[in-house]
Amino acid sequence: MVKRNLFLMSSSAVHGFGYLEHAQTDLTSFFESNNVQKVLFIPYALTNYDAYTERVGSVLKRWGFSCKGIHTFPDPVEAVQGAEAIYIGGGNTFLLLRTLYEEQLIDLIRDRVMKHGVPYVGSSAGTNVATRSIHTTNDMPIVYPPSFEALRLVPFNINPHYIDPDVNGTHKGETRPERISQFHELNDVPVLGLREGATLLVSGESATLIGPPTELPGVSYGARLFRKNQQPVEFEPLSSLSFLLKEEV
Amino acid sequence: MVKRNLFLMSSSAVHGFGYLEHAQTDLTSFFESNNVQKVLFIPYALTNYDAYTERVGSVLKRWGFSCKGIHTFPDPVEAVQGAEAIYIGGGNTFLLLRTLYEEQLIDLIRDRVMKHGVPYVGSSAGTNVATRSIHTTNDMPIVYPPSFEALRLVPFNINPHYIDPDVNGTHKGETRPERISQFHELNDVPVLGLREGATLLVSGESATLIGPPTELPGVSYGARLFRKNQQPVEFEPLSSLSFLLKEEV
Repeated sequence: MVKRNLFLMSSSAVHGFGYLEHAQTDLTSFFESNNVQKVLFIPYALTNYDAYTERVGSVLKRWGFSCKGIHTFPDPVEAVQGAEAIYIGGGNTFLLLRTLYEEQLIDLIRDRVMKHGVPYVGSSAGTNVATRSIHTTNDMPIVYPPSFEALRLVPFNINPHYIDPDVNGTHKGETRPERISQFHELNDVPVLGLREGATLLVSGESATLIGPPTELPGVSYGARLFRKNQQPVEFEPLSSLSFLLKEEV
Repeated sequence: MVKRNLFLMSSSAVHGFGYLEHAQTDLTSFFESNNVQKVLFIPYALTNYDAYTERVGSVLKRWGFSCKGIHTFPDPVEAVQGAEAIYIGGGNTFLLLRTLYEEQLIDLIRDRVMKHGVPYVGSSAGTNVATRSIHTTNDMPIVYPPSFEALRLVPFNINPHYIDPDVNGTHKGETRPERISQFHELNDVPVLGLREGATLLVSGESATLIGPPTELPGVSYGARLFRKNQQPVEFEPLSSLSFLLKEEV
């Protein structure tokens, strides 16, 4: 039985909120319901590990949780083995994944999360690596990882920071749906476009889209699901997405 | 002596112009001054090779040049060996580079362009692969190429479709300068941010930024040069960028 408990955020920054604040209620309740007091933070997606850990840790501390960067442990493998909860922050997905491979943490994190129920929090790049692969990241490929295959905590892909095309735009670079459509010309895996503010909450075989309440006009924290050769489908917060966990492509 | 003749476009589509039309005068003159009548088109960045070749070929034909897709030749290696000029179109940079490796064309194209002076035209992804590496593409990594190292027709990197941050934007994904800055935290290679409409024209050891005349207010077809630990520098069309060819990092 899969024991995963995942809190996969599209982003840590959301328009109208302070850093991570959009997730305060839900993340606090996620940690509390999983009896988490101490969080192991993995800052590999950025280069200044101390500053990054301080930035996230100071927020978690304000909310009543302690937080320690994996780089402050003598051995990252032992740090993961002893972790009460794992939180992988955003930044550059390629750098993050390469470092996870270098530190031999891919199989170990997967094991801790899937078999031992260690709660996993991801944001942006940390959400990308939680999925099947990083083939649908938005990031610039600043380093070459040994593979694009990732932690595979869920059997589909996520596109974080999902954004609709700007209908009045004059820029001719590919839109996000066009990029995902290029992916689907060559791959079968479903891609969940997670809008900023949205979080995918996964518990075992159940997945729910959540997000903070908003009264801003025109703002939705939902998600858009893209599948090969199908029209995309929009999901509002509180939708169940459990069906996506059952599909092995 | 390096014999290269390169016409590196940021993009084939530019706001206010028909497909490729922004480059009509300059590209026509580039082909004519190099005595090119027949163009070998490489459509590997997209999946429908026939449609893509027809799209570009019909424009070139209108301008007086013939165009044939590499996929219509029995052997792509022989097609490149016999090419009067090589044109690599845009699409997905990862797919393009992977296919160039699969078809064993990397060293060959480099040889034809650098030692034999075969004129090279690139657009978007075709411009990315002409540079040192694809580490500064904007594209989604939909496939895994065997390397990010590219044709290295110039010793620096280009970021095509370069765009300044939207100062009024509410989206929290990294801006283009932030992405390039992440690259420079880990790499020394200069990155030329080539705005849509801009083209880098390279002849031997000389490089010039060109672009069509524009009377649109606020529109510039220039480029922005990013270097590690330095402030970016803006270049207007007709600027010489030859100094970039002399720098081997």
